[in-house]
Amino acid sequence: MAVSVYNGFMNNKFNDINGNEIKLEDISKFFFKSELVPTIVQEANTQEVLMLAYMNEESLRKTLETGWTWYFSRSRQRLWQKGEESGHVQKVVSITGDCDDDTLLVKVEQTGPACHTGNRTCFYAPPIFKG
Amino acid sequence: MAVSVYNGFMNNKFNDINGNEIKLEDISKFFFKSELVPTIVQEANTQEVLMLAYMNEESLRKTLETGWTWYFSRSRQRLWQKGEESGHVQKVVSITGDCDDDTLLVKVEQTGPACHTGNRTCFYAPPIFKG
Repeated sequence: MAVSVYNGFMNNKFNDINGNEIKLEDISKFFFKSELVPTIVQEANTQEVLMLAYMNEESLRKTLETGWTWYFSRSRQRLWQKGEESGHVQKVVSITGDCDDDTLLVKVEQTGPACHTGNRTCFYAPPIFKG
Repeated sequence: MAVSVYNGFMNNKFNDINGNEIKLEDISKFFFKSELVPTIVQEANTQEVLMLAYMNEESLRKTLETGWTWYFSRSRQRLWQKGEESGHVQKVVSITGDCDDDTLLVKVEQTGPACHTGNRTCFYAPPIFKG
């Protein structure tokens, strides 16, 4: 019998921060191909792409429950709330899955710079190509 | 001795479609962590995020050489030019790497819908969450 490592999922449902019921089956589909789903983070007001991060099922749940972004750090191998040290948190405006359920697009209101380098976006370098 | 599987790289440089010289060392850094780099595709005019695709080194080179997007299909395990069958090609406006060289952001002018479902973007589904 498969046993979830995350006890919070034993009820097969939970409420997001707005009080809406989220069924496990509605979010588990994003993790069929991989335990980590690439998550594109876009500033909701400017439409600027800020970063790419990775969510596992638990970080998606914590994001839904709190309304702030949580990711899974591949280098540190643990959950982290974006901005937990820097204060540069991301308030979630919307979360949308893609056509084959293997990527998420999260629109946020970013506090401070998104990039750990202090830049507004992680894509601050000069383009390697211009058409 | 490491031998590249792609003979086109034997010269350690090539020209992009604008005639600018691209050194192998300037693009190989994106493939140190993985042979495939996640590539966020954004419509340059509307700023809408269209899709996430994957590039390997050869597809990035073909993109730079042609000015149109080429990706590596994980399901088909081969290079493909976006739109090669549908005609829904993507003209590259800019390509930018992120702060730790493991993600690319490609701004494009999209012909027709980007999604194989016929939708303008792969993120056409209703959001699973609104903040």
